[in-house]
Amino acid sequence: MQDQLIEKVMDEIKKRMETAAPAAPAKEEAKSNAIPALTEYVGTAVGDTIGLVIANVDPMLHEKMKLDPKYRSIGILGARTGAGPHIMAADEAVKATNTEIVAIELARDTKGGAGHGSLIIFGAEEVSDARRAVEVALKELDRTFGDVYANDAGHLELQYTARASYAINKAFGAPLGKAFGLIVGAPAAIGVLMADVAVKTANVEVVGYASPAAGTSYSNEVILQVTGDSGAVRQSVIAAREVGKKLLEAMAGPAPSVTTPYI
Amino acid sequence: MQDQLIEKVMDEIKKRMETAAPAAPAKEEAKSNAIPALTEYVGTAVGDTIGLVIANVDPMLHEKMKLDPKYRSIGILGARTGAGPHIMAADEAVKATNTEIVAIELARDTKGGAGHGSLIIFGAEEVSDARRAVEVALKELDRTFGDVYANDAGHLELQYTARASYAINKAFGAPLGKAFGLIVGAPAAIGVLMADVAVKTANVEVVGYASPAAGTSYSNEVILQVTGDSGAVRQSVIAAREVGKKLLEAMAGPAPSVTTPYI
Amino acid sequence: MQDQLIEKVMDEIKKRMETAAPAAPAKEEAKSNAIPALTEYVGTAVGDTIGLVIANVDPMLHEKMKLDPKYRSIGILGARTGAGPHIMAADEAVKATNTEIVAIELARDTKGGAGHGSLIIFGAEEVSDARRAVEVALKELDRTFGDVYANDAGHLELQYTARASYAINKAFGAPLGKAFGLIVGAPAAIGVLMADVAVKTANVEVVGYASPAAGTSYSNEVILQVTGDSGAVRQSVIAAREVGKKLLEAMAGPAPSVTTPYI
Repeated sequence: MQDQLIEKVMDEIKKRMETAAPAAPAKEEAKSNAIPALTEYVGTAVGDTIGLVIANVDPMLHEKMKLDPKYRSIGILGARTGAGPHIMAADEAVKATNTEIVAIELARDTKGGAGHGSLIIFGAEEVSDARRAVEVALKELDRTFGDVYANDAGHLELQYTARASYAINKAFGAPLGKAFGLIVGAPAAIGVLMADVAVKTANVEVVGYASPAAGTSYSNEVILQVTGDSGAVRQSVIAAREVGKKLLEAMAGPAPSVTTPYI
Repeated sequence: MQDQLIEKVMDEIKKRMETAAPAAPAKEEAKSNAIPALTEYVGTAVGDTIGLVIANVDPMLHEKMKLDPKYRSIGILGARTGAGPHIMAADEAVKATNTEIVAIELARDTKGGAGHGSLIIFGAEEVSDARRAVEVALKELDRTFGDVYANDAGHLELQYTARASYAINKAFGAPLGKAFGLIVGAPAAIGVLMADVAVKTANVEVVGYASPAAGTSYSNEVILQVTGDSGAVRQSVIAAREVGKKLLEAMAGPAPSVTTPYI
Repeated sequence: MQDQLIEKVMDEIKKRMETAAPAAPAKEEAKSNAIPALTEYVGTAVGDTIGLVIANVDPMLHEKMKLDPKYRSIGILGARTGAGPHIMAADEAVKATNTEIVAIELARDTKGGAGHGSLIIFGAEEVSDARRAVEVALKELDRTFGDVYANDAGHLELQYTARASYAINKAFGAPLGKAFGLIVGAPAAIGVLMADVAVKTANVEVVGYASPAAGTSYSNEVILQVTGDSGAVRQSVIAAREVGKKLLEAMAGPAPSVTTPYI
């Protein structure tokens, strides 16, 4: 009850502050002031995401990180909030560059939210490739956060691609080159119903099902991964989104997109 | 230090808002407006809890969820905040209905707090039974949150039943039909002392002991489960509550009940 | 985006409240009023830390906690925020007292932050020794939180000791009596770069490397542990701090020390 009250108050304050002074420009300004003079720095993005590169990983660290020795350069994409959006963005990045996904790790994070943060490592023989991969991924995030919806009670995440590549394959074991859909609901109860609607809506194949006790980092999510015909996968993801939004909004009111919906 | 200041400010704001305008009625109104037109929706409750049913779980999902095939209908109880209150509520629900507990999963959640969220699945042959179980559980939550006490530093949770049923048995391995007590302290240090006081106070048997690294989802809790004579279990739970409240309040001031104490 | 706005608003409110009325003294006062009349209570400290002792652990609990039977008395140090600072503080405490570290457990906590909380148990034959250990550790925390830096995007933690003792050895497997350095960056991406800089800067040996999926409780951290010549370890820790601060501040502005830097 207290939590709810605090949330309510915060909403109120937020509303008033939004009217009084727009927050975004000031933020943007603060950010650009702070760009560090480090060759390893690539950029930041939504979800408290940071992109970095290391041209020559120290051999001792290389071994401790269990990286394939053939990649002396790595690209690093890390975030407090988001794993699905980052995996999808990394998938586009490996399609577009001469890199490989060497690690995908999911922290239990989202800054007090119900989901994951992430750490994704690209391996490359040349640092320019690693940098390019991180740049592409950072740019993709605005799109891949499009069908992430959140309110005080939880969040939904929907992802769709017509052609899965190596990041999706590594993260979920989904078949390469086929359409892929990711359906996430938090709290997990919502995800169960979204998963049921998704598989009933269209003729898709279930690649995986994860829940708080299995396949997540104890996040409060149910995560369904589907593959199949691209039309079917897309339809399945959209149907799950519609039911998920109704439930999440029944819990705590409007659950807007973090950026702009695209599916 | 910054965290403490922010908490302090929030308390201040909260206090003022409480005087200015009572939050609960507005909240209630907002909620009832938002009830979704979905046959699967049952209701919501304290702790960002949602209750749902699925009349006919899709066979493919059924298999991925590893549910017993004999239950085509499921009831779903999920929450951001609370696992003990939900297990106790589910225990009353299985007593009262023709359902079985088929899964209990604990997320690391509580929205930035020190404890768990939960996902509990009831199996039933008829959807009406599944719905009834979820309804009973949602109604019980107001009571089972009664001896949950929280402040900025952490929380305590005390649960007592004169007769444990299948949810408690599944979650903790406690003997069926006997009195059962659950003692939770967060941060975990408080839980250690509560556990010691609990077992010293009365002649109870320890069913289980969980801590951040073993038996929890890395929550910052120590959790003791006891069984025995009903008087002894109750006495043990009450003694743990008293010492826990003193410690939690020494850390961060008043730690009121989330609803209304009942033990 | 909403999270960022809320953070911004909070910063604003915080700034105004700081000018209007200093928070610390009132806090201090509230705390001293609340000291519980319990022989087991030792004290509290930064990071929502509490220190407790139990003179005679109940034998049944003793067994469930898997403690060595030779220690009837235990000291308990637990916190919502911080594991490294507490392990380092406990290390000084075992150096200074007739106690042993019997358990170190890491919760996924920090109250919505990216890191760990902790539960550390000292074993002692006499309760006076257990109490002394907890007192020493509580006092050390102000120092060991000195090179913890935090802002809205994450945190850094740097620890250095010229001579590692039993707590560090138990927690990380670092060699006894040698210099030891701990390097933590959150979000984990920052920690990767800090680790690389640390091992490149000076001739240190890597004791361990932990990341969200391995060696942490799914925290959003990369943690490097190094040993070696004391000058080299210190240099390595300082170099990691400098690069970490630049990155964390590029994400979300100033990241001040939680107390006062000492390395």
